[in-house]
Amino acid sequence: MPLGEFDLIRQFFTRRPTRAVLGVGDDCALLSPTPGYQWAVSTDLLVKGRHFLSTVPPQRLGHKSLAVNLSDLAACGANPVAFTLSLSLPRVDEPWLQGFSKGLLALADRSGIELVGGDTTAGPLTVGITVMGEVPPGQALLRSGACAGDRLWVSGSLGDARLALEVFRGTVALPAAAFERVRLRMEQPEARVSLGQALRGIASSAIDVSDGFVGDLGHVLAASGVGAQVDWTRMPCSADLMTQPESVRRVCALSGGDDYELLFTAPPGSDLAVQRAASTAGVQVTPVGVIVPTPGLTVHDAEGRPLDLVAHAGFDHFAPP
Amino acid sequence: MPLGEFDLIRQFFTRRPTRAVLGVGDDCALLSPTPGYQWAVSTDLLVKGRHFLSTVPPQRLGHKSLAVNLSDLAACGANPVAFTLSLSLPRVDEPWLQGFSKGLLALADRSGIELVGGDTTAGPLTVGITVMGEVPPGQALLRSGACAGDRLWVSGSLGDARLALEVFRGTVALPAAAFERVRLRMEQPEARVSLGQALRGIASSAIDVSDGFVGDLGHVLAASGVGAQVDWTRMPCSADLMTQPESVRRVCALSGGDDYELLFTAPPGSDLAVQRAASTAGVQVTPVGVIVPTPGLTVHDAEGRPLDLVAHAGFDHFAPP
Repeated sequence: MPLGEFDLIRQFFTRRPTRAVLGVGDDCALLSPTPGYQWAVSTDLLVKGRHFLSTVPPQRLGHKSLAVNLSDLAACGANPVAFTLSLSLPRVDEPWLQGFSKGLLALADRSGIELVGGDTTAGPLTVGITVMGEVPPGQALLRSGACAGDRLWVSGSLGDARLALEVFRGTVALPAAAFERVRLRMEQPEARVSLGQALRGIASSAIDVSDGFVGDLGHVLAASGVGAQVDWTRMPCSADLMTQPESVRRVCALSGGDDYELLFTAPPGSDLAVQRAASTAGVQVTPVGVIVPTPGLTVHDAEGRPLDLVAHAGFDHFAPP
Repeated sequence: MPLGEFDLIRQFFTRRPTRAVLGVGDDCALLSPTPGYQWAVSTDLLVKGRHFLSTVPPQRLGHKSLAVNLSDLAACGANPVAFTLSLSLPRVDEPWLQGFSKGLLALADRSGIELVGGDTTAGPLTVGITVMGEVPPGQALLRSGACAGDRLWVSGSLGDARLALEVFRGTVALPAAAFERVRLRMEQPEARVSLGQALRGIASSAIDVSDGFVGDLGHVLAASGVGAQVDWTRMPCSADLMTQPESVRRVCALSGGDDYELLFTAPPGSDLAVQRAASTAGVQVTPVGVIVPTPGLTVHDAEGRPLDLVAHAGFDHFAPP
């Protein structure tokens, strides 16, 4: 006899609440917000074939589903608190659920965020997560705070996830070990939660790179009413991506997406504070450009010539896959 | 040129925040929880063919998607505050989005709940909503509070949504006007938010009837460690359902589901307080049974004989449609 919905949820996703007053299993979960803090909320929906491939191991998908949501909390500098999970599954597949919940809950434990509610139903494979976090009033990192003269920074490196996708698509070939590394970047990204928290009071704006550097930077520039000049030669790329031709590097690093690195701005005098925050969080950060008063984005190559950015405008979830 | 994802969200779902500190459009929304209140959270995922038919007008689907979530806040007695929306759509269909957002936002405005974030993507039609509300500490209505001797109450009437489904399935025929009435109950249910709020401090337990009376009552009994005796002749059924044979009435009212009425218990001395709360909320409530110390559920017919409840055990989201 197949497991019923309620048994299924209970078995894989119900654990004793830690911080929540009431966890999974009633009509609502109950939480006690920290007095004086603001509540940060974000939601992301992952659909097979668009946000993940059918070949992804369930444990990595569980991790990634939460990571992409944690990345939004990171971009706000919020402390993770709780999340809900909506799962639509073609059928009750216990090994799949075991792997998925293992990856999901391992990252949750490591990030100090608690699963407080969910809904499971039959249907096409779809994962919806809503995360909630806390941030001291006025300290949330917003997209709208970039000022002319601010330095533009990127955490980690960009483009590996897209490079892995191109290997899956057959347009790029990589040695096995390199493929495993970039595949992990695509299937099991790390959200920069500690960095976001450490940048509170230092960064003037922030966003996470989910749709691609050019597109996501565009959101910051539009929200802040400013422009940016970026030095292509300073863009942080992994050693694996550096083995690729310039054209592949550009596509992957500038419009690849799925990076979940933080892209942020900080006043010019704050370089040391930024580096200290990054060191605290154990993440490398690289200055890649500067914010300018005139709207528009220019990315210069090594010779100072502007790159053509039309091809890098960002990920449209309604564009053909 | 089709609308891009961001334009699409902006056009139909972005409005100036009212209560939220920061609404749709950044990585996270920001909210200021009311000092001293607990935060109630619930999530529901609606999939075509399982939670709604392809024939449902988009405006009604927008309403229902939020209503089923508000119903969880109602069952906790929480005040609605904010919600997020995740939408997977086969294609960008502007008339559909217009209708859906109209129904969704009209109910949101009427319920004092604010859309603070969302995610839209291409994929099979799926609607995910997470609602957040507030409740004074210790006053949330839980499933676990029913005590032996408590009276069992139901709001409104049960079974009309299932009756409408049976008409769609071709197993029942109804006059056109009656069909329109029950179809509205199925496609545009009302969440009993005001009643839930009014029952704080009065009801000992509560749940909303989403999977069917017998199944949902079973959750309350299990969580409370008690049993119940229900009088079938007192179950509130609409005039439309009363035209049906006893066998149809039983299936619809006892295991129909999709009712979004409140099923709650209250101490025997609180009948007057319950009736006053119902009157304040403008909702009819009916006492249908009593909580007993011995686990198990018995529903008696007019002659005092127990009904066979095996057929009414509740909705399994993984059972064949």
